[in-house]
Amino acid sequence: MEEEKGLAIGVDLGGTNIKGGVVNLQGQVLKRMSSQTKAQEGPERVLDQIARLVQKLKGEGKIEGLGVGCPGLVEPTLGIVRDPPNLKGWKEVKVKGELEERLGLQVEVANDVNAAALGELHFGAGRGVKDFICLTLGTGVGGGLILDGRLFTGSRGAAGEIGHLPVNIFGPRCRCGNYGCLERYVGAEYITERAQAKLKDNPQSLLSPLNRGGRLTPKLIAEAAQRGDDLAKEVFQETGEIIGAALSGVVNLLNPELIIVGGGVAQAGELIFGPMRKALPKRAMSEDIQRVRVVPALLGKDAGLIGSASLILKP
Amino acid sequence: MEEEKGLAIGVDLGGTNIKGGVVNLQGQVLKRMSSQTKAQEGPERVLDQIARLVQKLKGEGKIEGLGVGCPGLVEPTLGIVRDPPNLKGWKEVKVKGELEERLGLQVEVANDVNAAALGELHFGAGRGVKDFICLTLGTGVGGGLILDGRLFTGSRGAAGEIGHLPVNIFGPRCRCGNYGCLERYVGAEYITERAQAKLKDNPQSLLSPLNRGGRLTPKLIAEAAQRGDDLAKEVFQETGEIIGAALSGVVNLLNPELIIVGGGVAQAGELIFGPMRKALPKRAMSEDIQRVRVVPALLGKDAGLIGSASLILKP
Repeated sequence: MEEEKGLAIGVDLGGTNIKGGVVNLQGQVLKRMSSQTKAQEGPERVLDQIARLVQKLKGEGKIEGLGVGCPGLVEPTLGIVRDPPNLKGWKEVKVKGELEERLGLQVEVANDVNAAALGELHFGAGRGVKDFICLTLGTGVGGGLILDGRLFTGSRGAAGEIGHLPVNIFGPRCRCGNYGCLERYVGAEYITERAQAKLKDNPQSLLSPLNRGGRLTPKLIAEAAQRGDDLAKEVFQETGEIIGAALSGVVNLLNPELIIVGGGVAQAGELIFGPMRKALPKRAMSEDIQRVRVVPALLGKDAGLIGSASLILKP
Repeated sequence: MEEEKGLAIGVDLGGTNIKGGVVNLQGQVLKRMSSQTKAQEGPERVLDQIARLVQKLKGEGKIEGLGVGCPGLVEPTLGIVRDPPNLKGWKEVKVKGELEERLGLQVEVANDVNAAALGELHFGAGRGVKDFICLTLGTGVGGGLILDGRLFTGSRGAAGEIGHLPVNIFGPRCRCGNYGCLERYVGAEYITERAQAKLKDNPQSLLSPLNRGGRLTPKLIAEAAQRGDDLAKEVFQETGEIIGAALSGVVNLLNPELIIVGGGVAQAGELIFGPMRKALPKRAMSEDIQRVRVVPALLGKDAGLIGSASLILKP
């Protein structure tokens, strides 16, 4: 490894785990490590954890710098992270400054979904595409925008929150304080809720025993759908339609060439991509806008890590 | 006029009128002319009309070029206009090529609302602002995006259609084919419809006699509101709230610094700006996003004309 030029370390900081890796100019992860995030011990401690992880990954090798993908709002120039949802007590943390001091390396910081979008741009499904949207479907619904070939972060680094685009301004309250956000309809727990509501009238569904055990998740619903369970199929049909409808607004607004969809819930594959792909062009405004393609993310669980490294490798 | 350098002609092509003007580098309209659009006689004829108007405006003076703002979808590089809503029979018209041939001048073409956004950027309420959104409220609801200091038109020139962002994907059908678009709730005729629905239970409203004459418009509703009519005030209150709610999605997605609102319906002023400004930050996601300012457009009816000229003056 020591001989290779153009290496960077990417770190994907999550509420549960810190994942780090050495990434080369081809976007390959040459070496990887992770540790549990000691979130409850406060930002200083977590920054120490990251620094230690980076030191170990680096070893004796030469590294161009460190990219960090964080949840929450990231001010990109100063590398300040604000109110990350899964890191309690992180009001405002100078991730860039603190880590540069600890490590003597160049450090760049981005929101985790934005980092993933950058990863897809350089090494994934978005290679060569000037305007695309990344959507991640999981507990939360996140987004990243690549516009004119660059990550677009808006006036204060907060752009990309597709999950908090209302699909129904008269709808139920979202945890963000708004009403009827996309996340409030298709975030993992709301997919599960939709299944549970349907189970009342369909006790014969494969999902019934799982629900009694309180173990229902989108993953299990997808498995049941793949085994032919009608209720489970209906849940994904509706979920995909809602996402497609929401995306019709985004494509009318931004006219991208491509939409890249990743995250745990997107693992349901055709179950969710099918109805999404069908609803989107039906609702989008003009032929030119309807030409948008919808594809799965290519980098999978490494998107955050590789994308973070590309903050350094492909600035 | 002949002595001044840096002059361009801007043309605002509408379904009813063609407005043209000579614009200088300060965004001032030095000379103006207009003629009725002979839309029913086809694109060739209308292009001839534009050419004649430009010849007259130009006179013996020196002109850098011609900018044309058109309704509908504009492919900006080739200057091709597709399916403009108010110009029947315009399937696909090579406005740039045709006019360059007729006039021997450089010609640039943009969607009319995009041109207005560009006008506001260079000469209006958006001066010095890197990321802002233009919203025009009228019969249709249009939009233009200035991102990273430049007009953003998306992969095929169709970006900016804020009017066709669904505010309720389960809502009524919009003329664009989608459901529950912003325009379907706050386009002029739907504002009038809302007033009419309320009149059934409020015959004492100042609007009643106007409605019996079938003459109700947002302008008259605004006048009644300014004279203290409760029903009329309520109509604008609701309209502003819906727009604010829709914009909460746009700001969560794009995190702009500023929103500029123009168009006939925006003339209602505080009646509509008030509730819009109140609803938006209440719903927008984070403090940083909530800092967005909402201001009236500065260029008024000249926005299209000045903005079109700025396609040449400030490329």
